Amino acid sequence: MIMAPAGAKRNILERLDAGEIVIGDGGFVFALEKRGYVKAGPWTPEAAAEHPEAVRQLHREFLRAGSNVMQTFTFYASDDKLENRGNAQRFTGAQINEAACDLAREVANEGDAMVAGGVSQTPSYLSCKSEAEVKGIFKKQLNVFVKKNVDFMIAEYFEHVEEAEWAVQVLKTSGKPVCASLCIGPDGDLNGVSPEDCAVKLVKAGANIVGINCHFDPMTCVKTVKMMKEGVERAGLKAHYMVQPLAYHTPDCNCQGFIDLPEFPFGLEPRILTRWDMHKYAREAFNVGIRFIGGCCGFEPYHIRAVAEELATERGYLPAASVKHGNWGAGLEMHTKPWVRARARQDYWEKLKPASGRPKCPSMSTPDSWGVTKGHADLMQHKEATSLDELKPLFEKAKASH
Amino acid sequence: MIMAPAGAKRNILERLDAGEIVIGDGGFVFALEKRGYVKAGPWTPEAAAEHPEAVRQLHREFLRAGSNVMQTFTFYASDDKLENRGNAQRFTGAQINEAACDLAREVANEGDAMVAGGVSQTPSYLSCKSEAEVKGIFKKQLNVFVKKNVDFMIAEYFEHVEEAEWAVQVLKTSGKPVCASLCIGPDGDLNGVSPEDCAVKLVKAGANIVGINCHFDPMTCVKTVKMMKEGVERAGLKAHYMVQPLAYHTPDCNCQGFIDLPEFPFGLEPRILTRWDMHKYAREAFNVGIRFIGGCCGFEPYHIRAVAEELATERGYLPAASVKHGNWGAGLEMHTKPWVRARARQDYWEKLKPASGRPKCPSMSTPDSWGVTKGHADLMQHKEATSLDELKPLFEKAKASH
Amino acid sequence: MIMAPAGAKRNILERLDAGEIVIGDGGFVFALEKRGYVKAGPWTPEAAAEHPEAVRQLHREFLRAGSNVMQTFTFYASDDKLENRGNAQRFTGAQINEAACDLAREVANEGDAMVAGGVSQTPSYLSCKSEAEVKGIFKKQLNVFVKKNVDFMIAEYFEHVEEAEWAVQVLKTSGKPVCASLCIGPDGDLNGVSPEDCAVKLVKAGANIVGINCHFDPMTCVKTVKMMKEGVERAGLKAHYMVQPLAYHTPDCNCQGFIDLPEFPFGLEPRILTRWDMHKYAREAFNVGIRFIGGCCGFEPYHIRAVAEELATERGYLPAASVKHGNWGAGLEMHTKPWVRARARQDYWEKLKPASGRPKCPSMSTPDSWGVTKGHADLMQHKEATSLDELKPLFEKAKASH
Amino acid sequence: MIMAPAGAKRNILERLDAGEIVIGDGGFVFALEKRGYVKAGPWTPEAAAEHPEAVRQLHREFLRAGSNVMQTFTFYASDDKLENRGNAQRFTGAQINEAACDLAREVANEGDAMVAGGVSQTPSYLSCKSEAEVKGIFKKQLNVFVKKNVDFMIAEYFEHVEEAEWAVQVLKTSGKPVCASLCIGPDGDLNGVSPEDCAVKLVKAGANIVGINCHFDPMTCVKTVKMMKEGVERAGLKAHYMVQPLAYHTPDCNCQGFIDLPEFPFGLEPRILTRWDMHKYAREAFNVGIRFIGGCCGFEPYHIRAVAEELATERGYLPAASVKHGNWGAGLEMHTKPWVRARARQDYWEKLKPASGRPKCPSMSTPDSWGVTKGHADLMQHKEATSLDELKPLFEKAKASH
Repeated sequence: MIMAPAGAKRNILERLDAGEIVIGDGGFVFALEKRGYVKAGPWTPEAAAEHPEAVRQLHREFLRAGSNVMQTFTFYASDDKLENRGNAQRFTGAQINEAACDLAREVANEGDAMVAGGVSQTPSYLSCKSEAEVKGIFKKQLNVFVKKNVDFMIAEYFEHVEEAEWAVQVLKTSGKPVCASLCIGPDGDLNGVSPEDCAVKLVKAGANIVGINCHFDPMTCVKTVKMMKEGVERAGLKAHYMVQPLAYHTPDCNCQGFIDLPEFPFGLEPRILTRWDMHKYAREAFNVGIRFIGGCCGFEPYHIRAVAEELATERGYLPAASVKHGNWGAGLEMHTKPWVRARARQDYWEKLKPASGRPKCPSMSTPDSWGVTKGHADLMQHKEATSLDELKPLFEKAKASH
Repeated sequence: MIMAPAGAKRNILERLDAGEIVIGDGGFVFALEKRGYVKAGPWTPEAAAEHPEAVRQLHREFLRAGSNVMQTFTFYASDDKLENRGNAQRFTGAQINEAACDLAREVANEGDAMVAGGVSQTPSYLSCKSEAEVKGIFKKQLNVFVKKNVDFMIAEYFEHVEEAEWAVQVLKTSGKPVCASLCIGPDGDLNGVSPEDCAVKLVKAGANIVGINCHFDPMTCVKTVKMMKEGVERAGLKAHYMVQPLAYHTPDCNCQGFIDLPEFPFGLEPRILTRWDMHKYAREAFNVGIRFIGGCCGFEPYHIRAVAEELATERGYLPAASVKHGNWGAGLEMHTKPWVRARARQDYWEKLKPASGRPKCPSMSTPDSWGVTKGHADLMQHKEATSLDELKPLFEKAKASH
Repeated sequence: MIMAPAGAKRNILERLDAGEIVIGDGGFVFALEKRGYVKAGPWTPEAAAEHPEAVRQLHREFLRAGSNVMQTFTFYASDDKLENRGNAQRFTGAQINEAACDLAREVANEGDAMVAGGVSQTPSYLSCKSEAEVKGIFKKQLNVFVKKNVDFMIAEYFEHVEEAEWAVQVLKTSGKPVCASLCIGPDGDLNGVSPEDCAVKLVKAGANIVGINCHFDPMTCVKTVKMMKEGVERAGLKAHYMVQPLAYHTPDCNCQGFIDLPEFPFGLEPRILTRWDMHKYAREAFNVGIRFIGGCCGFEPYHIRAVAEELATERGYLPAASVKHGNWGAGLEMHTKPWVRARARQDYWEKLKPASGRPKCPSMSTPDSWGVTKGHADLMQHKEATSLDELKPLFEKAKASH
Repeated sequence: MIMAPAGAKRNILERLDAGEIVIGDGGFVFALEKRGYVKAGPWTPEAAAEHPEAVRQLHREFLRAGSNVMQTFTFYASDDKLENRGNAQRFTGAQINEAACDLAREVANEGDAMVAGGVSQTPSYLSCKSEAEVKGIFKKQLNVFVKKNVDFMIAEYFEHVEEAEWAVQVLKTSGKPVCASLCIGPDGDLNGVSPEDCAVKLVKAGANIVGINCHFDPMTCVKTVKMMKEGVERAGLKAHYMVQPLAYHTPDCNCQGFIDLPEFPFGLEPRILTRWDMHKYAREAFNVGIRFIGGCCGFEPYHIRAVAEELATERGYLPAASVKHGNWGAGLEMHTKPWVRARARQDYWEKLKPASGRPKCPSMSTPDSWGVTKGHADLMQHKEATSLDELKPLFEKAKASH
């Protein structure tokens, strides 16, 4: 059953309109941080130009795992972000964006994958620049994607739907299909706009595919996309749906997601989902009617493979990497120890409640944001301030006002 | 402080004799399983020939992270194992072993690293083949390593010290330095030989460096090496010491290590050590007098980098990958949210007790071996049997006899 | 500061109207089950007649701990319940109810306490008897309370507000103050009536004091009473408020409360609240505007004492039992070991996150009701069926319908 | 099967020699602390004189639960302790000791129970008084027990075997049977004397029954008594064995037991054993050959009943309190909710892993003694110092010396 399907290379909307499942890729910044090519904090993607072999290899692993989408490694690659975040100026923003496009295209051509160009939220918006200025930032990135002829566009990782609408409006000018993906939970965006309303706004702005990425665990993200779908349908509109969640369990998140957990970003290990958690996620996303199913921070190639394996019947084939993976642990039949061989079955792994090995640690944390909530204008204006001390009074004011 | 030290490429014994720290690499089979190139169960390394780009990339990441040792990706690559474990015969054992040597050498030459050829325990020993036959297996692998002129040899992952002694005796014939590393805990090998006695036997067999790899968490492995060191010193012998533990918390292991935990190998995620756990491990290993410090299953490049960062003062330099990592989370100073910037300090991460996000899971498991214990001859003879049913009566007999 | 206040023995409404805090007692059925006088399952109070010394002693302990209310030990003492539940017929319902009144009065007279007669939900309502029949049950119990001249009445532990309204209407005929207390959470009663609406209905039926008892942990109960208070105020009505929660942590409850937790009723030990948890509960209840503050299942005398100690400043005195308790652990100053003496301070106990000592157990459970939800008529009619097999098809039907 | 056995009132040695099981009682200081009659810190038993009704009631509950031994409530009632610990001088030590004897005798006569007089470790020993002085303390207490004609004597709660030997030598002079019970774990007493050696010393000093009480959880105590038994048998001596453990899970204790856990004594709730844990304990104690089986701190009447129910077949009868308890939860068959009725079976409760309901708490703690270990003479001499500051330098010295 393992083989590339015939007649590939169709457009994402053709695929989704035909009822196909499109599998996304995983989280580049987190995976490459662990491999030594991305710095946590700035999270900028200069590795596309600095270490193309590392980025190319990660693309390949996701392709093998079943991804139909190679997202250009251009997260936070807008000029304003790169400047802010200390890019050592070895490469210009254009160089990074172009190198990322070339790498994604090279690997996409090795299999059945499309290239998606990506833009995400900007420091300019957070520091209250005008709509024209913010749109100018997106336009500059879009020029590269058009020049490199990516297959479609994704506006992702937006905490404010307004900025996402602006991005969609810019991306639509390219004539390419446009996805819009917010990093919000069931409580809505940071201004308190509900998922239902966010989705309607994005579709009206021109997005063909809407959904959620990052910030929350898979089940929470699927639930939020379901709310978006209900909003769109209630408004009498039409759209396709996407979801690209964290690969971390985050039952204890507040409205700002995993950023506020005390473990972010260097102590999240105990929360990493197993491959079996991913089977449940993929099935739930499919059942809810989502057809573009991928991952974000924490997703490693084996997590995407698990999504592809769960949906193998619906898709009609297994991913290439499944030659190195027996279904539901079947490969363990060849293990040396008999009692490990006895684990080579779905029933075993589905029921397992994995222990943490950390008896002195709790199972849930208390998020530690300093009273920042929806629509707190003072703080929003200062989010990019670099000195912590400078901000303390604002936080205390914010806290006192609750 | 980041730079390769001058005058590199000295032999491992020269380095250790000079009091230097040698940093090992991480766990290839587990890392490549997650990347889609190794099959859990057989765990064989055909990827060295099938997908050299993936193996090369992982070597590079460990080199960047600070490793001074590129172990050839030849775990379980003895002919008897490859046959047993369903190698699809696209590549001969010799081809795999040779390809692995070339990859390790290629990357070692890109930095300050040595190439170590590796042999490990064999099905032949477990099925009670003669000393001559088992030694023949090792000799055949050694021929490749000699031909490819690796810098030194490691006999690793042995559960019975007797087989490890045989391996050491074979490897010594090459004239190269020899390490011997058992996968046992403080209770000793599977025949009940204590760590102290194991170490003495291995040094007498000719090993220059002795220690522990795999099966237990870092602190348990360091403790076991400490016992080995005490044994060697008490016997009036001399040796260097090495440790390459799991990157998983395993306080609930029995004498056979993490294999017997119900989570092995597909539900270990909650147990993965953070980078901060690695700082403690590296310091403790150093304090105990171990100078060859690396990792085994579960160790990703960022874990090795943490070892190298902890020991940067002693070594005099940081690894290359530290350009993408602020010390103790310092990179977070550039994060967007102020309360995340507040985490950019050692005190925060050292004290953090990370939550699992899994309130319905326990913190410790009950190992599930079927009564197999030290020196149970009947079972040892049948460990390689392929049918589970065939073995059940033996296990029940074993259990009844306790 | 320890002494009984002058001018006691005023009516509960006089006290509450004057802004005083009235402290309730704890959970008799659970406490006496552990002491060997009540049978879990039937939970009937025949001990009032069988073993008066045990019931008297428990009353005394709560009085010493600070209770101003001695509830007659008449839970589930309606005739229909006693018959159903296998009362061995040594005592009639009237004998039990009368004995309970005498014991409560005897101990109340030893201090500053009032006697409250109690009625609770009946099997007759659940098996769909008529309003007249159900009211007849309550009337029969009320006759005893009037004869024994209790100080006020409590209709407590009702899952359906309709039955509670009927009870209030009957109790009002006595001319005594009437409390109405439901065992519901924020999701409302088992027919889906919200806490706000429940409260309004109860006040309109004639209740002077409304609130919540049992089924949920303290913070959840306080939250639900807050909703009731908001409902009453929004409706332009007036009432006093009461809360008598569980002494168990139940973050994992569904809408039916702790009954559905797998640990109910014989494995709840790890969930028992500490005395310090009770300080937080008492303060929160007070802050929300609740002035009749007590406990239900799980509350032992020391839990009530903690409530009284937290509110000692507001009440103006400490309870008698505080002579055996230093404030916030101050008694530890006389402990033998210095490091235990170091724990004699509020800061220590407030911050302590107590460990369970059970590393192989989870922190939360999955409630196991079989699909029973709000308003499921078929099941409601059969709740009193005694054979499990007989009910299985109904549960399966209920589950299938979700 | 419920009835008092005929021919009761035989001596404890007659019973044990005949192979009978003797069930002890539970922990008075902890139970009465929660009921409001004992102050944590001093832990003195003046309630015997102040509130005899409360002490009598607790004796009765243990008798109903199956206890064959009423221990006089004289823990820490030596004169030196009472003075040290702030007894308000309303009662003399003699008055308290005599009242306690009378209460124990009164209730013992209501059923099949013996009265045991108890002495425990003294401040005098810890502050290095002479053997003669310490023995004088014991002698003074013994005079009361002889005058009141208790049935046998228990020297319990000793951390140093030497002091326990002195107590046994004094108690032997009464001609009554003598039990000796240490509060130590498998690591031995606080001077490092092993359990095996402790037991031999105690038997040689004249003890008829030796064992362990308090400080550790049931399974740890049973294990320690097993070691004592092996020591006695290896020495060719004869004795009977007793165990009276905590009713708390303490897997994280160090050698000083639960005192050093951060939760002691006011945050131990999550650790409380269920009745089902007690079944396992009783069976294990019996299997090891222990025949005097009871409880210490944390044991409530229902815990003792569970011990008696587990051993009902061996003893030939159930305790009186079992009329209020169906075997293994059988009483739940009469519960209102069908899914709770489904829990009325042994299999359900035996397998249940009870959740803590505290997802933000860990499962194990780190004991916080300040470096005190076996045989640290300086500290031992100062254990009774009252100022913490005064001791700090000693603790720091102790820590530094490890």
